[in-house]
Amino acid sequence: MDIYLDNSATTKVCREAVDAMLPVLTDNFGNPSAVHARGVRAKTALETARGRIANVLSCAPEEVYFSHSGTLANNTAIFGAAEMKKRAGNRIVTTALEHPSVANCMARLEERGFEVIRLKPAAGGAFAPEDLLRAVNKNTILISCMLVNNETGAVNPVELLQKAARRAGAPALIHVDAIQAFGKMPVKPGKLGADLLTISGHKIHGPKGVGALYVRKGVQIRPYVVGGGQENGLFSGTEPLPAIVGFGAAAAALPDVNRTLERMHELRRYAAEQLKALPAVAINSPADGLPYIINLSVAGIPSQVLINYLSERGIYVSAGSACKKGHRSEVLSVMGLPPARIDSAIRVSMSRYTTREELDALVGEIRNATKNIRTKL
Amino acid sequence: MDIYLDNSATTKVCREAVDAMLPVLTDNFGNPSAVHARGVRAKTALETARGRIANVLSCAPEEVYFSHSGTLANNTAIFGAAEMKKRAGNRIVTTALEHPSVANCMARLEERGFEVIRLKPAAGGAFAPEDLLRAVNKNTILISCMLVNNETGAVNPVELLQKAARRAGAPALIHVDAIQAFGKMPVKPGKLGADLLTISGHKIHGPKGVGALYVRKGVQIRPYVVGGGQENGLFSGTEPLPAIVGFGAAAAALPDVNRTLERMHELRRYAAEQLKALPAVAINSPADGLPYIINLSVAGIPSQVLINYLSERGIYVSAGSACKKGHRSEVLSVMGLPPARIDSAIRVSMSRYTTREELDALVGEIRNATKNIRTKL
Repeated sequence: MDIYLDNSATTKVCREAVDAMLPVLTDNFGNPSAVHARGVRAKTALETARGRIANVLSCAPEEVYFSHSGTLANNTAIFGAAEMKKRAGNRIVTTALEHPSVANCMARLEERGFEVIRLKPAAGGAFAPEDLLRAVNKNTILISCMLVNNETGAVNPVELLQKAARRAGAPALIHVDAIQAFGKMPVKPGKLGADLLTISGHKIHGPKGVGALYVRKGVQIRPYVVGGGQENGLFSGTEPLPAIVGFGAAAAALPDVNRTLERMHELRRYAAEQLKALPAVAINSPADGLPYIINLSVAGIPSQVLINYLSERGIYVSAGSACKKGHRSEVLSVMGLPPARIDSAIRVSMSRYTTREELDALVGEIRNATKNIRTKL
Repeated sequence: MDIYLDNSATTKVCREAVDAMLPVLTDNFGNPSAVHARGVRAKTALETARGRIANVLSCAPEEVYFSHSGTLANNTAIFGAAEMKKRAGNRIVTTALEHPSVANCMARLEERGFEVIRLKPAAGGAFAPEDLLRAVNKNTILISCMLVNNETGAVNPVELLQKAARRAGAPALIHVDAIQAFGKMPVKPGKLGADLLTISGHKIHGPKGVGALYVRKGVQIRPYVVGGGQENGLFSGTEPLPAIVGFGAAAAALPDVNRTLERMHELRRYAAEQLKALPAVAINSPADGLPYIINLSVAGIPSQVLINYLSERGIYVSAGSACKKGHRSEVLSVMGLPPARIDSAIRVSMSRYTTREELDALVGEIRNATKNIRTKL
């Protein structure tokens, strides 16, 4: 048995991506910055991938900048925006539930004297609109918020960020970390009012080692990593062409987003009904969240014990984010869950390849665990 | 005809690397930070690659930190060292010939108030020891120098950096950018006296999208990119596992470095003799440089014209660095070459797969070019 339910950590690379990468790893190995025929051929593959990403985002290809990771794209968006706007104001508004690749940038900016306001989540795990309106003032230079929370699937109303900035007369740039959302729900930066929007390859069945930052035409931020000036100067370093091409192919292979989302809602309802029937199980994810993620707690079984129990049976889930290994989930803490429930939380994260049979097996093994482990503890 | 002589820009991925990468792209796709069995398996692949790199560097595996690019490793080394040592002094010593991924960091540190001393190259393109000794004082916190110049192949006596720091009683960290040297000549950070040393995957027949920073045990620098804390906190962002595994396999596939170096010296002598026999050709690389790189000028033919002429005939060379596309080479300018010679310079960069027949073809086409193009211009 091999049931992979840790798709918010990383996904299996799809066949289309692998097939697209092979020629770039073997024959088309040139440097896209080289001016000879081999360079031109590599550059063509790079631009094809860019077009494919732009197509899914409904933006212009020249608004897509490839980075070496989603984390680097987030760092560049936040440090780059703060640096560009620092003379216009001192306040940054974000949430208390961001991924560490955003949250740790905020901590550094605070050290440097910026005032960082972190919106607390309301009941479902998303921020409350009135908190946003209260936080954004005319000195706000950056508003950064994730679209989908990586631990709970909560969806933030990020389309309000731009409205809040306008209402306050703030010179703020709007940054949306859409890493967990891209490919799973409609993500159109234009419609969301985002100036900057981050996505990552390996969360959509592309390879690890590539991300992208959407930068709205006309918006300028300061590059964070400096060097040879690749990606129009925004992400220096030789382009990770195999990964970029794989990312492009994975984006092109995405099925119709709304139809898939409906199917995932059904799968989630199916799993949730069975899980709720187990007396020890409490679901921590909001009912209106992105259906791909089900965060749940099994009373009396510590997260790690359950993860190991399931792993031994070929079912792979995680405790919160892979990026916070070994630490108690801050996301669930900030949401106000009691410690016992946090310490017994696991994250089940599905992909479009997940089946009902796999969820049946998961529920079955959680049921077994509640019988076998809890009696022993 | 397909003769690739732009190996200092990027190399063809070797069979061993591709073969090692395929399982990581298809079956072993887990996140190395995940704690379930799939994560553990991915982590094992990561650590195998680390051991392979450490083996070539003759260092401990825990001194090797994987980055998403050589550029990111250089940025992290320089900004991270400056940040860590800023209370101990204000001076940084480097050379005037560094790659943009170092040179542009230095420019930013200068903006922030650091005093940056750039050593001018002596005749052969390497720095002069007496200049180094004069530049390093007791306030020097960082000395950064490339081992092999990417445009000319000049080899800097980097083993003197640590000696200069000790003589001056400087608290300096020693950083060596060994990207063009690694795999082509012995590179042992311990022997070179380096605290920090940068290498890159795609220059040694590994894939693009991975680099590594050697950090000597006990040395601490501040991370530059922040996030999930991967690579012991030094390089946050999901590890680019396919590229890392390919890098490890490419390192393990490196043939005996001294024997290969001797063969490359012979190849270089062979090519240089024929090139010198052409009256229009002047060689810009020092005779005692790394033999893989031959920088030369063909009087009366602008670089781009010759590159295109050769490219149309299936021979791929570059004008200086791929990372400085479209700009006149600063390296050759700083070396004091006359403008006409700089504007007609090309870089021929070989790999261990380069043959005499390929060099014959290159020389033949340069000879043809001097006849066909110069008469037309």
